[in-house]
Amino acid sequence: MIAIRRFNESDWPCVWAFLREAFAAGDACVFAPDSKEADIHHAWVASPAATYVAVDDGRVVGSYYLRANQPGLGSHVCNCAYVVTPDARGQGLATLMCEHSQLEAVAMGFRAMQFNLLVMTDERALRLWQRLGFSVVGTLPRAFHHRHFGYVDACVMYKELVTQTD
Amino acid sequence: MIAIRRFNESDWPCVWAFLREAFAAGDACVFAPDSKEADIHHAWVASPAATYVAVDDGRVVGSYYLRANQPGLGSHVCNCAYVVTPDARGQGLATLMCEHSQLEAVAMGFRAMQFNLLVMTDERALRLWQRLGFSVVGTLPRAFHHRHFGYVDACVMYKELVTQTD
Repeated sequence: MIAIRRFNESDWPCVWAFLREAFAAGDACVFAPDSKEADIHHAWVASPAATYVAVDDGRVVGSYYLRANQPGLGSHVCNCAYVVTPDARGQGLATLMCEHSQLEAVAMGFRAMQFNLLVMTDERALRLWQRLGFSVVGTLPRAFHHRHFGYVDACVMYKELVTQTD
Repeated sequence: MIAIRRFNESDWPCVWAFLREAFAAGDACVFAPDSKEADIHHAWVASPAATYVAVDDGRVVGSYYLRANQPGLGSHVCNCAYVVTPDARGQGLATLMCEHSQLEAVAMGFRAMQFNLLVMTDERALRLWQRLGFSVVGTLPRAFHHRHFGYVDACVMYKELVTQTD
């Protein structure tokens, strides 16, 4: 039974371990394989509005952050990033975290969610976010430096979380 | 004769005065009308890769910043924001600063430039950036909270600065 709760500082060693592993692949996350722990702690925990962990029987198996994507007059649109541990894949955890994040975002007053740099070669993620209601806004030519393929296209994805009359 | 040079801290009082005025309009810049000076100093000067001022006969008439738009594997794409003082408008200063920024960006190793939140009601800016080679990547529905019109569409714009074979 997987539960999602707010991140505590005591989760960090575990979260950092699987973030570092995910970034090492260099094929989907914007954070570089050689990212420094302090920089990632800042990006994942210190600067976002909130950070969460997915816990399966006491074990942390995923994490995501939720933050305003822009300051001021764009701050009603949020941004999230999700990472699942390798041994917890294929159980719908990304879906669970994304659905959780949308509810949290609305509760915090956000009106839309944006993914800024979805790598086009990551077809599985692209399909997943589309199934969860995100649209491809457009393509950013060669905006992602893929570890294996070099400069590849990325896309911006977007989903409104509240109706216009809200 | 307008010259563009690197920002010095002694320029800040002047730059802050016209940034504050530009943000007060709430119709084009993402920074809120009630932005705090320290936050804007951080966003405009401290955190970007570089900040510039346009100087006309010793008077600062515009400013822009240049920064990586994303960390790590997206850090070869830069982002800029430009502000022109009200009494210097209509002289092609935005064009001059944008062309300057593209040269600086290439010199720093950036490969593309992205504008994240161009307000669709700001048709003059939209036409200007298109004339300077930027394409509309796509539309973000109601992503900008306009002071007069409420939630309005914005778009992402993008221009590659080097050819694929570089």
